[in-house]
Amino acid sequence: MRDVAIIGAGINKWGELWGKSLRDIAVESALKAVTDAKVDRVDSVFVGCMSSGLFTGQEHLASVLADYLGLCPVPVTRVESACASGGLAFKAGFAEVAAGMAEIVLVVGAEKMTDVGGNEATYALGTAADQEYECYNGATFPGLYAMMAARHMHEYGTTRRQLSLVAAKNHDHGLKNPNAQFRARVTPQEVEESVMVADPLRILDCSPITDGSAALILCPLELAKKLSKNPEVKVLGIGHATDTIALHSRESLTTLRAVREAGARAYKAAGVKPSDIDLAEVHDCFTIAEIMVTEALGFAHPGEGGKLVESKATSFGGKIPINVSGGLKSKGHPVGATGVAQLVELTEQLRNQAGARQVKNAKIGLAQNMGGTGGSSVVTILGAD
Amino acid sequence: MRDVAIIGAGINKWGELWGKSLRDIAVESALKAVTDAKVDRVDSVFVGCMSSGLFTGQEHLASVLADYLGLCPVPVTRVESACASGGLAFKAGFAEVAAGMAEIVLVVGAEKMTDVGGNEATYALGTAADQEYECYNGATFPGLYAMMAARHMHEYGTTRRQLSLVAAKNHDHGLKNPNAQFRARVTPQEVEESVMVADPLRILDCSPITDGSAALILCPLELAKKLSKNPEVKVLGIGHATDTIALHSRESLTTLRAVREAGARAYKAAGVKPSDIDLAEVHDCFTIAEIMVTEALGFAHPGEGGKLVESKATSFGGKIPINVSGGLKSKGHPVGATGVAQLVELTEQLRNQAGARQVKNAKIGLAQNMGGTGGSSVVTILGAD
Repeated sequence: MRDVAIIGAGINKWGELWGKSLRDIAVESALKAVTDAKVDRVDSVFVGCMSSGLFTGQEHLASVLADYLGLCPVPVTRVESACASGGLAFKAGFAEVAAGMAEIVLVVGAEKMTDVGGNEATYALGTAADQEYECYNGATFPGLYAMMAARHMHEYGTTRRQLSLVAAKNHDHGLKNPNAQFRARVTPQEVEESVMVADPLRILDCSPITDGSAALILCPLELAKKLSKNPEVKVLGIGHATDTIALHSRESLTTLRAVREAGARAYKAAGVKPSDIDLAEVHDCFTIAEIMVTEALGFAHPGEGGKLVESKATSFGGKIPINVSGGLKSKGHPVGATGVAQLVELTEQLRNQAGARQVKNAKIGLAQNMGGTGGSSVVTILGAD
Repeated sequence: MRDVAIIGAGINKWGELWGKSLRDIAVESALKAVTDAKVDRVDSVFVGCMSSGLFTGQEHLASVLADYLGLCPVPVTRVESACASGGLAFKAGFAEVAAGMAEIVLVVGAEKMTDVGGNEATYALGTAADQEYECYNGATFPGLYAMMAARHMHEYGTTRRQLSLVAAKNHDHGLKNPNAQFRARVTPQEVEESVMVADPLRILDCSPITDGSAALILCPLELAKKLSKNPEVKVLGIGHATDTIALHSRESLTTLRAVREAGARAYKAAGVKPSDIDLAEVHDCFTIAEIMVTEALGFAHPGEGGKLVESKATSFGGKIPINVSGGLKSKGHPVGATGVAQLVELTEQLRNQAGARQVKNAKIGLAQNMGGTGGSSVVTILGAD
């Protein structure tokens, strides 16, 4: 198995991109990544997208992207795992480089979510949960995460204020990210006074509906120095795991087993431990998710994720800065793009090119991407040369 | 890169499976493959499915399958490339074994198409074409293939009767396949008298709407003999390529460029040529498709695919038997399952376990799976030990 490096990264300005279609958005980031890497060819492409079928009536993105990138007949593969589609597309692209099946691989994550109305978007996002049981009985995504939040509060004494602090922190971080969808300071009090969505989660506890994309170029580590003048970013380890699709089948509502297992596998593959991580981009689709993920990844003991955010350890400048990009909360959450965007952020940070939000001496970064209520998760650890 | 072998295969009875949901169908074949391989664990799973979102309102099959196979936290990846989803899931699973990322990999292809009405199914299948141009202007899949057929007739003199012979041949073959959806003899005259769908294609030129699944177990070739008592089936080569999503962007309506390129790559990887192939399973979603595919794969010169079927060379007992399983036409076409099912058929043939439809002395088999009107294609060549 060959070592793999990232030699190019690209992302577009996220938001409600009314003037652009899914293919436009995907191509935009892909070309930025190709330009950044300065490569003159691509051997294989992977696309992470959750539900182009339900959001835009377009499946078969393999052909669409090859076509609109001018790359036919280059092979293109679409990968889906709900909101973990981007992270998983990266893993699939990594496999082809590691196996020696391709030398230069482009990985794109993209989603166009605003071409449908609110009810249709809620339905499309619900397809990441158990359609035959959870959704059939009326559950929505915020509703499912609200149950997890309520149980976490009950078991561990996690407070309403701790949830608010996650949102406030990530919006603070997003102020420094020119590509973020919502660059607005949000106070804990504003979170607590915002509209109730599913008790205890309010609108400012939830990540938004977003159009956006992100892209990376991978190649064998040995080729990286020859192909690119960018500082080398090495893939140290990838972990990928699943959990039951329905929340009601789990032993615990407060433990993200897929995240814990994916994290353990990634740490093992990379030969590092949680305390070695200099910064992390994690899947804060709801404020409670970030708290539970920090526990599953070993940044906090079980039940102490709320205290961790309260301690400011996860803030910019803290011991383990989390979501310095703004996270899903402020940067936005075009579901299929998110996992790739996390790795774009880490790449910029490990290259020391993250500008105002640069984490000092960042050498090892972790990205955690999650599908549904934690039914699947991918954890990727990157290292600077 | 490690050599890879197939050590288990499973398929269920295809048809209109009203009593089963997508997850039931997928699990059925997966367990058959696991039982056939006699393995006591699986390290990674790949699922090929075109549009579980539009057909069943369920994305995130990674979590659904891990859950219903009782495999959590084993990693599961869904791959999509329209009707080539199954073949591409196989390629992605192959990559993980080849790279050394997993030892025992389960590949499942599945689609449940009958939970929606006819118009919705037509819409869902249309998402494999160009939604923003072709579908927006009213094109349907049979309509697009009808244009290719009309042009092929015009350029090469392909006849209505030659199209009919493809359907008649594949239905003849399907009579010997207990898992086929339509086990009925069809005469060329019956094809020509059947209801017109899109001139010149009639209903009996079209593959059906089907519920079904198929599954395979892969492992490193070196491990195959230790893990399984089944005759060894080796993956000799895989080729994968793309073409423009829209028919109107192509230089020629009568050349399947993605198939030609995928075939060339697979032949090169396997170190074989078309005349070395003992049998092939190809993507006869419409009768014209089989004719064009045989040309793109080098079984016939350009324009002579019609004459090839007329010569009976592609019939059971002929020089290069094509679709002895019944093909998509008789066996059925649960879109995401088709590519995996083709490889299940080849595995049974190369093991000399195909019963009444066994091709004598079958040593090398080829499977060709295609998305949309040829916007993507995967060609896989397998060899008996």
